[in-house]
Amino acid sequence: MISGKTTLIAHLGYPTEAFKAPMIYNPWFEKSGIDAVVVPMGVKPEDYASFLPLVFRMTNIRGALVTMPHKITTVGLVDEVTPTARIAGACNAILKRPDGTLVGDQFDGAGFVRGVERKGRPLKGARALVLGSGGVGSAIAASMAAAGVAELALFDTSAASVEALAERLREHYPLLAVTTGSRDPAGFDVIVNATPLGMKDTDPLPFDIERIAPSTFVGEVVMKSEYTPLLRAAKDKGCAVQVGTDMLFEMIPAYLEFFGYGTATPDELRAVSQIKYA
Amino acid sequence: MISGKTTLIAHLGYPTEAFKAPMIYNPWFEKSGIDAVVVPMGVKPEDYASFLPLVFRMTNIRGALVTMPHKITTVGLVDEVTPTARIAGACNAILKRPDGTLVGDQFDGAGFVRGVERKGRPLKGARALVLGSGGVGSAIAASMAAAGVAELALFDTSAASVEALAERLREHYPLLAVTTGSRDPAGFDVIVNATPLGMKDTDPLPFDIERIAPSTFVGEVVMKSEYTPLLRAAKDKGCAVQVGTDMLFEMIPAYLEFFGYGTATPDELRAVSQIKYA
Repeated sequence: MISGKTTLIAHLGYPTEAFKAPMIYNPWFEKSGIDAVVVPMGVKPEDYASFLPLVFRMTNIRGALVTMPHKITTVGLVDEVTPTARIAGACNAILKRPDGTLVGDQFDGAGFVRGVERKGRPLKGARALVLGSGGVGSAIAASMAAAGVAELALFDTSAASVEALAERLREHYPLLAVTTGSRDPAGFDVIVNATPLGMKDTDPLPFDIERIAPSTFVGEVVMKSEYTPLLRAAKDKGCAVQVGTDMLFEMIPAYLEFFGYGTATPDELRAVSQIKYA
Repeated sequence: MISGKTTLIAHLGYPTEAFKAPMIYNPWFEKSGIDAVVVPMGVKPEDYASFLPLVFRMTNIRGALVTMPHKITTVGLVDEVTPTARIAGACNAILKRPDGTLVGDQFDGAGFVRGVERKGRPLKGARALVLGSGGVGSAIAASMAAAGVAELALFDTSAASVEALAERLREHYPLLAVTTGSRDPAGFDVIVNATPLGMKDTDPLPFDIERIAPSTFVGEVVMKSEYTPLLRAAKDKGCAVQVGTDMLFEMIPAYLEFFGYGTATPDELRAVSQIKYA
């Protein structure tokens, strides 16, 4: 029950219609007796730079979830950015400190990595391929580097984007083997689709599924359906997979801790979630 | 259940802790299947002028409830102000039109007047005394004038405030007898306490209760308790009374209509309300 004492977590993005976080956080807050609410706020790109500092002038706001199209812009609008968010080049979370300053962090990648490791696939020493070097792909790459992968191959149709990410990774992790330019999936332990391919029914698969071994772990960020065409093909080959919403449910505990609201397990969050699949 | 498709009604004021509207509107929206939510937003006076236009740039906001200390400032910040809000010198509601322009209106007075008339006390031709010419008192005076009272006596410890209100009323209602300068309650049909007296346990009564007849109708805007010391004294004299929250529940149907969410009766709203009295 929202009252005048309820703390706000703004959910900033545009358009808002497909937002899923309110249907997970709010039932969890209610179940846990936490007097907070995630409020979707549709903010267009042209308004964001002036909106962000003002929304944090509110006396009852504690933080924000940041989503498309504001993740990259946020880096330049907060007072401090964590190393992971810096490498990712994007923030998806903002915390307002007691002194009013804003710190930006990034949990997309942490969510992905937590999910893979919970499935019994430690990333330390692994060879990983990340397809897509936009906000989510960059975040996953940053968190995989932090988790200790031995080799990180990056591919994106935008060479500029992928080279810039590779550069930031090499700067921060000089011992990590970072390669770019190929989407050949052969020989990797973990492959992630962090491109939008799979959002439309007519999309091709993001890589040649014939060239992976059944021992390859395949992860997906697209949440349009639980099992995208890529994940169905990977399962058919006998691969272990991670669905798009796993990243979501795995990152929420990291957010909750960041906002100072304790933590939760993905299963506890799934149990209260009101998300409906099409 | 809040989702990305939910429409926001901002509840603007500071501090937010004592806000009551979310605990009435939100249960009503849920019961009625209206996908909207009232969200308390604490905004300090020094931030309000820059905050207001930006909060209405959100793509999922339809309107705002405005409370202390922003009701007066709002008049100068919206694109259009209704005549009642103009006389009251204050807005407590803002609607965002499809073209993005903002219209400010005022329902405090309408809420009070609806409540009195629902209790079988028509105001047409009545002699009324309004104590307090701040935001609420001015709004009640404006709506009483619109309801056709024959005489309107105004009292406030600030002579400047009460004279300015009297002037605006005379300008709009040249046939109405507006007097100022006395708080003697003798001889009135309806008396309203629109001062803060009653908020503290040590407050004196706002007028000399000994000088009113049992036929006098006594209304109250203070909501600290359901029956304030003034209302208890008036009831002891045999007077009919109106409690502070009646104004609140009576004005909500006017707001709902203003926002385009149909309407409701005060009883229906009370039945879903989650407000707890101390």
